[in-house]
Amino acid sequence: MTFERGFAQSEYEDRVARAQAMMRDAQMDAMLFMTEREFTYFAGFQSNFWQSPTRPWFLILPADGDLIAVVPSIGENALSLSWVKTLHIWASPNPQDEGISLLAHTLQSLPRRFGQIGVPMGPETHVRMPANDFVQLQTALAPLTLCDATDIVRSLRMVKSEAEIAKHKYVAGLVCDAYDNMDQIARAGLSERQILKAYQLDVLARGADTVPYIVSTAGQDGSDDAIRFPNDRPLVAGDVLFIDTGAEVDGYYCDFDRNFAIERASDATRRAYDLVYRANDAGIAAVRPGVRACDVWQAMADVLAEGGAEAGGVGRMGHGIGLHNTEWPSLMATDETVLQEGMILAIEPGFDFAPGKMMLHEENVVVRSDGAELTTRRAARDIPIL
Amino acid sequence: MTFERGFAQSEYEDRVARAQAMMRDAQMDAMLFMTEREFTYFAGFQSNFWQSPTRPWFLILPADGDLIAVVPSIGENALSLSWVKTLHIWASPNPQDEGISLLAHTLQSLPRRFGQIGVPMGPETHVRMPANDFVQLQTALAPLTLCDATDIVRSLRMVKSEAEIAKHKYVAGLVCDAYDNMDQIARAGLSERQILKAYQLDVLARGADTVPYIVSTAGQDGSDDAIRFPNDRPLVAGDVLFIDTGAEVDGYYCDFDRNFAIERASDATRRAYDLVYRANDAGIAAVRPGVRACDVWQAMADVLAEGGAEAGGVGRMGHGIGLHNTEWPSLMATDETVLQEGMILAIEPGFDFAPGKMMLHEENVVVRSDGAELTTRRAARDIPIL
Repeated sequence: MTFERGFAQSEYEDRVARAQAMMRDAQMDAMLFMTEREFTYFAGFQSNFWQSPTRPWFLILPADGDLIAVVPSIGENALSLSWVKTLHIWASPNPQDEGISLLAHTLQSLPRRFGQIGVPMGPETHVRMPANDFVQLQTALAPLTLCDATDIVRSLRMVKSEAEIAKHKYVAGLVCDAYDNMDQIARAGLSERQILKAYQLDVLARGADTVPYIVSTAGQDGSDDAIRFPNDRPLVAGDVLFIDTGAEVDGYYCDFDRNFAIERASDATRRAYDLVYRANDAGIAAVRPGVRACDVWQAMADVLAEGGAEAGGVGRMGHGIGLHNTEWPSLMATDETVLQEGMILAIEPGFDFAPGKMMLHEENVVVRSDGAELTTRRAARDIPIL
Repeated sequence: MTFERGFAQSEYEDRVARAQAMMRDAQMDAMLFMTEREFTYFAGFQSNFWQSPTRPWFLILPADGDLIAVVPSIGENALSLSWVKTLHIWASPNPQDEGISLLAHTLQSLPRRFGQIGVPMGPETHVRMPANDFVQLQTALAPLTLCDATDIVRSLRMVKSEAEIAKHKYVAGLVCDAYDNMDQIARAGLSERQILKAYQLDVLARGADTVPYIVSTAGQDGSDDAIRFPNDRPLVAGDVLFIDTGAEVDGYYCDFDRNFAIERASDATRRAYDLVYRANDAGIAAVRPGVRACDVWQAMADVLAEGGAEAGGVGRMGHGIGLHNTEWPSLMATDETVLQEGMILAIEPGFDFAPGKMMLHEENVVVRSDGAELTTRRAARDIPIL
């Protein structure tokens, strides 16, 4: 499987055009972005420099016309390589005025129709600038006011183009290969930490750009936790090893897990694996356009309930995937988001089958007109023994 | 060189005690944290789960007594393994009330003396929760108000213990080894992207837990950029390859770069390398307790000026290092932070020696009573030829 880096410029033009149509409906003169994913999504700009918390970056999408970047001096050259042609630069660091007056001036200079600037301020977003500066910005912008742009960004980013799906599929495929190689990596006597290190190197060597989300936890009959850091206890026969992977290529993620038994699996482990596998089947079968996120959740919850289980402490049984390992929507009882063609979802039923023993099983799918297209190779029907 | 994971509990107790003394002076009843680094610093809690933007996490340090965590259900087990003994849990995701009422209730239940809760809201910080929820929290907290806790966190985190310094030294050492191995990795005919991938794997195989900040850029006579993503052009003789590395072990970073010439170096390249090397010497020599960040900057700027150069678009010539690859303070003309023993600094002079050609050279040091202790092996005196 091959994949091409970047996107045709038409992809960005399309994103911008659809955003601008929604902005006019929502009565915004512009949207203001400041996080890595929005720079990636709209500007096609990528840099590891987001790791440094020192300097904010600002991207403006006016209701009409082209993107405008307001960025620190260190970013001038790198951003000029993107399709964004209007750059305003300030000499940074400057904690006394870290781009605020330049940003306010730029926003105030835009054509004014509604007097509102959209900023993502809702679920799964955050403002990437100091809170004091955000207050100062709002003061400097008056009489312009800020309003919430989460719905626009969410509805755009939830539905992926074929070019976006291709990147997701590529990274999902190479992680499938890495999981298939687990018998070369994990065995009794090695610790969670040793296994995680070898697996991290394997995923990156296979072509993932980064693997920011990676978990390796094990416990007798079942792992005890889906998110904790690995420890140094050597694995022993009967342990279940849980590996979860949010790997990324060219900005796009996969996010799915696998379970492995070390040397042998108990009946309780096998039963839990079977039940969660069937719940996953039911979730995958329930996916189609027009169905709600909560309906997919219900299909999985029903299978678990028939098996005498209820959903565990993870709080949901799946979620969107894209520029983050987890994105909107959530597959849970209260999320009524209607599925659309082109959404990428993690189908992730799980439950605690005994105190401190969880079983969580995840696949990735794309919503297609006729149902779910698996983008991961379905896990083994019985828990693999290493 | 060896290193031990984690810290003695006394290390955390000491951090908390010093924070609480400063909180009383600043008239705060508690501090509220929500970012990965503060959970790491005060709670000793680490997880890759910070990659998921879905759920906020909250950590409360009361003016008296022990830490209190208010975290989503998925984090209950993992956090219970830390030294934080008081956990309040909400069923998450719950976008309608994503921990806000539980957090507000918990803060309101604390002993009230000053009526203020400190939150880091100043330079190099951000609030990791949706902006709408932050407003809602402030409303729910009334009559309690929020005040800025940046100065406390900054002054604590800027000065490192010997146990923290040991982690930094370990990762700096293994990156030095990786740089020494560059002749096995980079050569004419390979692209920036191919070199970056091989180097990423090398640093991780040598024992870095992660390498979130990694740059590989090249250009004829000199690289054109310090932060852009790598491209696919094959390197040719006369190119200068710039590699920068923010690698991490057990939460702690190194951050330093190296320059390499491919097959040959022009006189202009050699002169630029020599000048920036001497500027770095001057910066290292200027470091001692009681000197200000701007004084170290001036020492480097003087050498560059004598060489006919001025500092480039990076905006500063060094910075703190610790739980981020870049932290307070900034080595620049306007930063009057007084250096103290135990600070870890990147000494990073740089300049543009021709249009589109930069020379940037970075070492890491610890501020000791008698001056700078290098934690990186000093770069080669002349630019290495690969």
